[in-house]
Amino acid sequence: MSKRRLEAFSDGVIAILITIMVLELRTPHGTSWDALREDVPVLLAYVLSFANLGIYWNNHHHMLAAVSRVSGAALWANLHLLFWLSLIPFATAWMSENHLPPVPVAAYGMVLLAAAIAYYLLQGRLLSIAGKHSLLASAIGTDAKGKASPIMYCVGIGLSFVSQWLGLAVYIAVALMWLIPDPRVERTLAAQRDDGGKSST
Amino acid sequence: MSKRRLEAFSDGVIAILITIMVLELRTPHGTSWDALREDVPVLLAYVLSFANLGIYWNNHHHMLAAVSRVSGAALWANLHLLFWLSLIPFATAWMSENHLPPVPVAAYGMVLLAAAIAYYLLQGRLLSIAGKHSLLASAIGTDAKGKASPIMYCVGIGLSFVSQWLGLAVYIAVALMWLIPDPRVERTLAAQRDDGGKSST
Amino acid sequence: MSKRRLEAFSDGVIAILITIMVLELRTPHGTSWDALREDVPVLLAYVLSFANLGIYWNNHHHMLAAVSRVSGAALWANLHLLFWLSLIPFATAWMSENHLPPVPVAAYGMVLLAAAIAYYLLQGRLLSIAGKHSLLASAIGTDAKGKASPIMYCVGIGLSFVSQWLGLAVYIAVALMWLIPDPRVERTLAAQRDDGGKSST
Amino acid sequence: MSKRRLEAFSDGVIAILITIMVLELRTPHGTSWDALREDVPVLLAYVLSFANLGIYWNNHHHMLAAVSRVSGAALWANLHLLFWLSLIPFATAWMSENHLPPVPVAAYGMVLLAAAIAYYLLQGRLLSIAGKHSLLASAIGTDAKGKASPIMYCVGIGLSFVSQWLGLAVYIAVALMWLIPDPRVERTLAAQRDDGGKSST
Repeated sequence: MSKRRLEAFSDGVIAILITIMVLELRTPHGTSWDALREDVPVLLAYVLSFANLGIYWNNHHHMLAAVSRVSGAALWANLHLLFWLSLIPFATAWMSENHLPPVPVAAYGMVLLAAAIAYYLLQGRLLSIAGKHSLLASAIGTDAKGKASPIMYCVGIGLSFVSQWLGLAVYIAVALMWLIPDPRVERTLAAQRDDGGKSST
Repeated sequence: MSKRRLEAFSDGVIAILITIMVLELRTPHGTSWDALREDVPVLLAYVLSFANLGIYWNNHHHMLAAVSRVSGAALWANLHLLFWLSLIPFATAWMSENHLPPVPVAAYGMVLLAAAIAYYLLQGRLLSIAGKHSLLASAIGTDAKGKASPIMYCVGIGLSFVSQWLGLAVYIAVALMWLIPDPRVERTLAAQRDDGGKSST
Repeated sequence: MSKRRLEAFSDGVIAILITIMVLELRTPHGTSWDALREDVPVLLAYVLSFANLGIYWNNHHHMLAAVSRVSGAALWANLHLLFWLSLIPFATAWMSENHLPPVPVAAYGMVLLAAAIAYYLLQGRLLSIAGKHSLLASAIGTDAKGKASPIMYCVGIGLSFVSQWLGLAVYIAVALMWLIPDPRVERTLAAQRDDGGKSST
Repeated sequence: MSKRRLEAFSDGVIAILITIMVLELRTPHGTSWDALREDVPVLLAYVLSFANLGIYWNNHHHMLAAVSRVSGAALWANLHLLFWLSLIPFATAWMSENHLPPVPVAAYGMVLLAAAIAYYLLQGRLLSIAGKHSLLASAIGTDAKGKASPIMYCVGIGLSFVSQWLGLAVYIAVALMWLIPDPRVERTLAAQRDDGGKSST
């Protein structure tokens, strides 16, 4: 089964999610810089969610580039991932409309946790198609970041009941961990390209 | 006529429909878990509609993968399907804003019924292009699910006037029937791929 | 210059326009069929705009299928068309929120008129690239529909000041004129395909 | 790394941004032409933002057409650009809801400035992959417009505190500067095509 439409549909959904959050950015009440300052927590929450969705798109892009076909089960695993990602704007809005109180910050972390697990399940589906000695398997390697993320989200959710700022700090730390580029995948893909692998385009 | 843009446009519309429903998910009034609990019927309706749109995208993907060209009539049949799918967010909102009362639950079933009929018409259009001995015809087979769905929706619409929960139970049953993967189509497609059919990509 | 991204971008914009109109479909006030009845003019306006955008997408699809390359000027002509199409949801909302009064009905017709002119300009751009003896030129032919539409829209705009129902009747007539499939384009494309023209895919 | 999904994702995000602004176009209060007249500043702001996003899409299209591969760093530079573009609807809404007061007009210019810088950074990333003697390098040339734009935006931001109309005039001047087609890029691309460069499709 071709991976083209799975990529196109995921691109569409993530592109919409990353942009509809701007509809939540309410126009400030007033025309002064002070009026804008009240929107600062909302804008920060938007930046965090934009970064998280950008990371998912980026990783999705890399992961799909390393496989050549998908299965029906992978389509469902992908829709499951998109479902949890689709709740990010909702969780962002709840968190930011109320100036970042503890319960919505914890709920935001739970959505990120569910998305991380859904991504892990999708990766497993794709690995079972591609095989243990595939390009995908070598690109993923030990998957240290993928395993650390859910644990860190659990810590963040717990800490957000102590102080929401601690919880948010952990979520930001996870995002920064992913934003730092991972040289392994690109090196593996570059090596493959040099071997003449034109089929991955 | 190439099927590429029909796929791209359908992907776009379904991707938007599946995500704009989150704009209906109103931010809870308050920052406690209790505030979130009031949103539970809304969230459940969202899950059901997300699943239904996901099923349509998935089936659309499979059906189009089995044909190699489309006609002008198929473009219109596809737009007709997209029209009814586009009413799912509206029906979901009516149903969920009012905590699932009978009439909106029946109206939701009618939209699903119309979409199922539109899908059936599109399938007929594509079959008439592909022919009786085509890959598509063998992939569809007796089309038991496709024939059972409209009947079940009619039953669900009727039952929702007795009790909305009975109506919803039928709609959920139809969704679950489709969520269980159908091994036939993938087997047929896999068989074709082994025969060297590269043109379907 | 490749036409692929022009098609993809246009597909994206039209797909979004055709679906965001459902966000204007306000949830009925109440849970009875009577509550839904108040939405009937809104739903009818939605159907008309859905049909118009569907027609534009369909014609755009056919027109681009008949050319093999685009120019920078064609990109701008395409953005100009998309601009007027993007005002359709706005005009639809103004017309339908107020139960179809004369001035908004006339304004709706003006947006359709501007879109028809923009489409004509885009067609001219593409024709000047493709040449008088091109596939596109023979597919367009005398362009009777394309020339009749702006005139009919002008008539409809004028009539909507007499009675909005007359104006709407003309707009509906134009849409029906286009919804009837045009056998020429498909015949021309089919003829080309039989000649072995694989490059149009 | 293939550039296809980067193009598709960017197309999706820009297509959504350019269209969700119409959701901000509030239905006029009333059904007369006077009611529409109150929306004129909103409509003008919409036209300016539509033009700006159209220019970015157009330039993005040209730039990506001139490269054959992208890197992970280019993906992030692209997401950075999309982030600033995503704030254009927000800045447009703030500016237009309040009938173009100075501070929101300055803020609008700052978003345009940040987007221009982000575009410059993305261009630098792509140049470092393509090399100094690449098609991209010759297409960009001295990049006079790219260098003039940020300076003009700074001037516009400053002038908007003197009078918002002066600031807006500068922003409009930048847009007009870009709307005038640049013959160099197309000439370079056309020259390459004549050399038989089919790989850029």
